[in-house]
Amino acid sequence: MAAPESDRLRSPPYSILTSVAPANEAKLDAHGPDASEPRTTHPQPTLTQGTLARSDSTGERDRRFDQFKTLGGRLERQLSSIRGGSQHPHPDPAAAGDDEASRDSEAETDDDSCKVPTADRYFAALEGPELETLRATEVPVLPEDETWPFLLRFPISAFGMCMGVSSQATLYKTLELEPSTAFLRVSPGVNYVLWWVSAALMALVSFIYLLKVVFYFEAVRREFHHPIRVNFFFAPWIACLFLAKGLPEPVMSLHHAVWYQLMAPILFLDLKMYGQWMSGGEWRLSRVASPTTHLAVVGNFVGAQLGARMGLREPALFFFAVGTVHYVVLFVTLYQRLPTNVPLPRDLHPVFFLFVATPSVASVAWARISGEFGLGARVAYYVALFLYASLVARVSFFFRGVRFSLAWWAYTFPVTSAAIATAVYASAMTSALTQALAVGLSAVASVTVAGVLATTVYRAFVRRDLFPNDVSIAIRRRPKAKFGKILKRIRTSSADLKELVVSRHSGAGSASETSSVSEPPTPMVYGRARAEP
Amino acid sequence: MAAPESDRLRSPPYSILTSVAPANEAKLDAHGPDASEPRTTHPQPTLTQGTLARSDSTGERDRRFDQFKTLGGRLERQLSSIRGGSQHPHPDPAAAGDDEASRDSEAETDDDSCKVPTADRYFAALEGPELETLRATEVPVLPEDETWPFLLRFPISAFGMCMGVSSQATLYKTLELEPSTAFLRVSPGVNYVLWWVSAALMALVSFIYLLKVVFYFEAVRREFHHPIRVNFFFAPWIACLFLAKGLPEPVMSLHHAVWYQLMAPILFLDLKMYGQWMSGGEWRLSRVASPTTHLAVVGNFVGAQLGARMGLREPALFFFAVGTVHYVVLFVTLYQRLPTNVPLPRDLHPVFFLFVATPSVASVAWARISGEFGLGARVAYYVALFLYASLVARVSFFFRGVRFSLAWWAYTFPVTSAAIATAVYASAMTSALTQALAVGLSAVASVTVAGVLATTVYRAFVRRDLFPNDVSIAIRRRPKAKFGKILKRIRTSSADLKELVVSRHSGAGSASETSSVSEPPTPMVYGRARAEP
Amino acid sequence: MAAPESDRLRSPPYSILTSVAPANEAKLDAHGPDASEPRTTHPQPTLTQGTLARSDSTGERDRRFDQFKTLGGRLERQLSSIRGGSQHPHPDPAAAGDDEASRDSEAETDDDSCKVPTADRYFAALEGPELETLRATEVPVLPEDETWPFLLRFPISAFGMCMGVSSQATLYKTLELEPSTAFLRVSPGVNYVLWWVSAALMALVSFIYLLKVVFYFEAVRREFHHPIRVNFFFAPWIACLFLAKGLPEPVMSLHHAVWYQLMAPILFLDLKMYGQWMSGGEWRLSRVASPTTHLAVVGNFVGAQLGARMGLREPALFFFAVGTVHYVVLFVTLYQRLPTNVPLPRDLHPVFFLFVATPSVASVAWARISGEFGLGARVAYYVALFLYASLVARVSFFFRGVRFSLAWWAYTFPVTSAAIATAVYASAMTSALTQALAVGLSAVASVTVAGVLATTVYRAFVRRDLFPNDVSIAIRRRPKAKFGKILKRIRTSSADLKELVVSRHSGAGSASETSSVSEPPTPMVYGRARAEP
Repeated sequence: MAAPESDRLRSPPYSILTSVAPANEAKLDAHGPDASEPRTTHPQPTLTQGTLARSDSTGERDRRFDQFKTLGGRLERQLSSIRGGSQHPHPDPAAAGDDEASRDSEAETDDDSCKVPTADRYFAALEGPELETLRATEVPVLPEDETWPFLLRFPISAFGMCMGVSSQATLYKTLELEPSTAFLRVSPGVNYVLWWVSAALMALVSFIYLLKVVFYFEAVRREFHHPIRVNFFFAPWIACLFLAKGLPEPVMSLHHAVWYQLMAPILFLDLKMYGQWMSGGEWRLSRVASPTTHLAVVGNFVGAQLGARMGLREPALFFFAVGTVHYVVLFVTLYQRLPTNVPLPRDLHPVFFLFVATPSVASVAWARISGEFGLGARVAYYVALFLYASLVARVSFFFRGVRFSLAWWAYTFPVTSAAIATAVYASAMTSALTQALAVGLSAVASVTVAGVLATTVYRAFVRRDLFPNDVSIAIRRRPKAKFGKILKRIRTSSADLKELVVSRHSGAGSASETSSVSEPPTPMVYGRARAEP
Repeated sequence: MAAPESDRLRSPPYSILTSVAPANEAKLDAHGPDASEPRTTHPQPTLTQGTLARSDSTGERDRRFDQFKTLGGRLERQLSSIRGGSQHPHPDPAAAGDDEASRDSEAETDDDSCKVPTADRYFAALEGPELETLRATEVPVLPEDETWPFLLRFPISAFGMCMGVSSQATLYKTLELEPSTAFLRVSPGVNYVLWWVSAALMALVSFIYLLKVVFYFEAVRREFHHPIRVNFFFAPWIACLFLAKGLPEPVMSLHHAVWYQLMAPILFLDLKMYGQWMSGGEWRLSRVASPTTHLAVVGNFVGAQLGARMGLREPALFFFAVGTVHYVVLFVTLYQRLPTNVPLPRDLHPVFFLFVATPSVASVAWARISGEFGLGARVAYYVALFLYASLVARVSFFFRGVRFSLAWWAYTFPVTSAAIATAVYASAMTSALTQALAVGLSAVASVTVAGVLATTVYRAFVRRDLFPNDVSIAIRRRPKAKFGKILKRIRTSSADLKELVVSRHSGAGSASETSSVSEPPTPMVYGRARAEP
Repeated sequence: MAAPESDRLRSPPYSILTSVAPANEAKLDAHGPDASEPRTTHPQPTLTQGTLARSDSTGERDRRFDQFKTLGGRLERQLSSIRGGSQHPHPDPAAAGDDEASRDSEAETDDDSCKVPTADRYFAALEGPELETLRATEVPVLPEDETWPFLLRFPISAFGMCMGVSSQATLYKTLELEPSTAFLRVSPGVNYVLWWVSAALMALVSFIYLLKVVFYFEAVRREFHHPIRVNFFFAPWIACLFLAKGLPEPVMSLHHAVWYQLMAPILFLDLKMYGQWMSGGEWRLSRVASPTTHLAVVGNFVGAQLGARMGLREPALFFFAVGTVHYVVLFVTLYQRLPTNVPLPRDLHPVFFLFVATPSVASVAWARISGEFGLGARVAYYVALFLYASLVARVSFFFRGVRFSLAWWAYTFPVTSAAIATAVYASAMTSALTQALAVGLSAVASVTVAGVLATTVYRAFVRRDLFPNDVSIAIRRRPKAKFGKILKRIRTSSADLKELVVSRHSGAGSASETSSVSEPPTPMVYGRARAEP
């Protein structure tokens, strides 16, 4: 180990650079901002052969998004590279001379953008409670300064809207039917309207996302590998379960097959997610747990609730059991705040309201399964109530520097679920207090959803930034360091570089924190080579 | 990064010192022991203007404790500094010349002592199972070599005494009333006497601590921010709950409002504590969890038990639910012994008996809520029994180098609770074995309390060291390193300091263990300065 | 800190070596491979005084295994060392001159091999899911290149065979008696034969292991301190419980004393294991938890199941409670995959099937205790079912580079337990589906056991490598670094070593990862003070 270190010390300064950033890595930024700046100002008209891709910003064929395309992109690229000709401008004129080398580096670029980044890369490259912001040191694969095609900007979290609205439909059905809130005389029309609205919304969002699956499968794959975003893949099915629950007619009338069809993907995702937690590696729970992970658990309870209502008591109990066990694990992990759970924000963020969702839904589910709002259901309900109070007590921190996103919709459904649970609870323990609580929480839920709806409409139609560039799917597989500065300094001081400085570039962010990634702490060595005799 | 390092290497030795310990930091020890030594020998008679502060040791006005005073101290200091004149002797004669600078440094001293240290500072500066001992490297804010005012030495853990005695009152009431132990014919007088003793003790301790709140609010605030000590803020309310439970007349006769008034502060503290766990940061559970944290959970169960007895079944269930959920989280965390949970001692310490408290109390609480000593209550009871046995099996380690403190009283109440639970259990499952167990555990509890009482009396009246200086509230906000030694050596060797400078400032204790604090492991640097020709 | 460091810098190169590996440490390898090579070729005939030790490979007296012997070895060695004469050949001829020193070093060798390595040493020296493989950097205490005496190679995990076969006996008894599988008309003969086979196997394995206890107690002690292996000490008692359960006559006929006698060692081990988890240190759960730890929990449930069947409901509930609480802790810990839990393999390994064991057994135990297959039992059963499905879904990874070992037997009993639980469940919820499931899982269990049996027979009699050298008990207490290479290089390059050699010795394996073990990253520094002019 001593030898390479001492060799490196004696080598000329440039070799230090290359040893840290291999030459072909330096060419990786064909899609980086350094390289893209000239291209943005001079769009290449010669590249507009195909128009398979939907592109909002420009009618022209834009090759930069090809790497995320399902078929067209990669195929075309291969064709054009067979036809020869280096169509990608080389940012480094020195490298352009060597054609063989440049083609190699290009191949690597393709390779690099196609493979999905590891979970640790997501943590290293992104920040924020939803891992939705690029760290300052990162350079995305796609151009940052331009609006991407709409489909690339349409995230899976859009299904949160469906969850928010369809849970409202369920809430009003509950208020209408529960004895405790019968005195409100809620018209069946409210549920009817809300249900159709949410059904329509569900159809629309599903259609758009299906287009994304078809045309930009790479982007979908990257969302599925995003440690936070993957939890939203439960959202479509949870929204459908809410639709089934909120059906303007008795749930009993639904065919059992509907339930089985909705629970099958949830069971599949359960097996996938929980298996990844258990198997460890970069997806281990002590690493990826975040309040959003509640979405990966709550589906079991929503399904159990509906199933028990439809008379499928044993399958409902199965999902309840699976949910409970994994909820306990998740709850403990989140409460512990392990030092390895990086992305949890300190300030209150709407995502924390997901804490309320699971016990609320679990409480009603258990009441439905056991046939009464007994001790078990009430324990779960009181836990939900306490967590709700705990969050409300800290609500003063609420809107401090929190950026709105579509995911907020998913964070509203817990409030609605708590209102539903309260209405059911109030039917079991009828008193003025519980009824007032039910009405109060229902009002809060409706106001919250209305507020988020208003914000969404404002963002969508007035500020038109509801769908910003989804940078979290555009991170590079390997960190792209900014060596420019260090290189310049080394070169200028190269003349009188008698001493030698080896400095260690510590990689991107917090990546070095877990044992698996930890590189040996490199000593910084300073030696004055030799004084003249 | 390389450049400043190499600059530092060439700078004169003094600059190394300043780079690590800024000049004004060096003056911070106006209250430190180095500086206080001359002052202790020559008490300043000119400073005895006010006598608001109670001072046991000297009748004179002692300014050193002013920073912990609620009003008087800071106000006076401000007045005197307006009146001009540098009344604080400067330890560094060089700095005394510059009056402007000295006033700046004084301002910083005030600032430093007023702000509450962070949780991480507590962990870094203190050690021991109750974080009650100053680390060797630390210099406290208050003089170490002198007895402080009594109120500053009166810790919140004194309420442990009330818990210990009032739980004994409850125990004898239980032995008197439970069918399983009726054969003992315990006289109601025992409960009566114990209850009045504990009521009087409660009144006394509350009064003294109230004085502390009034006169030394800073000290109270620092206790509230102490990661271990904060749990004792539950103790007064738990003691009151025990008083209510142990009332020499039927609990039914109590007004419901009493229960609500006692549970309100517990609910408030619950929201505060659990919210801090959840919100993470330096108060995250994976950092602050210790057996003492059981005190923050057990209150819910004591309250639930009393509430259920008084007929408040639903509110009792609420607290039971809240307690259970957080108990599970705490239990798992404590059992896991995460590497981030530093202060847990390896050897058996009385604090470990708090493990027994929660399941014991929870067992009886659940029995009262569900109306029978059913499966649930028995599971909790057996868990308590096993943990009890587990601790007793390791009792050989018990008194190895464990220092007595008032907190031991809080560690006796679990033994009493286990005895109570056993008596209740024995009433449900009456047999010779269970009755013997009930009697045996009651005897153990009484003997334990008697032993701790004897030790307390001995410490209080014979050795007169029951209330030692409470250094754990007197830590500095920032570590104050002892640079004297390193400075001296550097200065002496400064003449021929051609070869080598090793500077590694290792910070305070274990602070570098979490990722957030971790400093890069400092390289050892070797430079050959000059070879003679 | 700076002073000794700088001294070291100026000292001649050899002193560096000695400072890292003290001279007497270097002689520690009297039993190491370097030293053993000459001895292996020239067996010392002068040492064949006693023949107390069973030695399979050579009829002669082989001293190298003496250190693991209970009495003979150490006694003889002491005798021979009293008789004088340095019978151990010294690998270092220089050291051989000093007789006093050599005797000292010998004493240290004895001392070193007798003391049991710490848990952290096991983690540092071994790898693999069962910590059964020596790391590349390690040198074992016993000769690696030769077959050890049979008893030293007979691990405690051999009791896994008994668990596997006796649980099959129980399965066929269940299939015979449960109403849900009565249609299979399983003959009582199957249970009868299997029971006698497993009883005989139990007797055999117990006898052999007892011999190991008697003759090689050191090896047993080292197995008991092995973080993974220690869990197998529960296996004999669990196997006995299965034998009691699978008895070809009604369990009711068993005397209660049998149950108490079987549960006593389990309670003892519970107290020992869980106490170690709680007390922290190197045995803390966040460090030692692995799927194998399930064996330390499942015994409680097996015992509870049998106890409830025999009418001992309260003692059964006691073990159920103890088991449940610790199972929750273990389950959460395993699912979290804390970064400190090193040895968990990423790929699926048979050990993962232990996840299925506990909920399966717990489900039936609860059903027996509560008297019906109610909600609680069904929740546990469904959890087991989900975990089973989760593992089967990943079974494609199954046999990738997994080495067979006797421990696999222990990993088959969960499959059998799941089959038993399914049969009991099917009796409560009789339907074609549940009956098919019961039959299917029973078939899978029988096929699995048959497969493992075939492999065992093949290994035992054809490849004759069923009992390989059990290196995991032969690790050194302190890491023995391989300094040969680095030393050689330093010596050869010493002539022109004018500038600087910084070499960092990174310690053994992953030992530096937890805070307790973390050595300060010790840079080994060598500087040649002055070049000739």
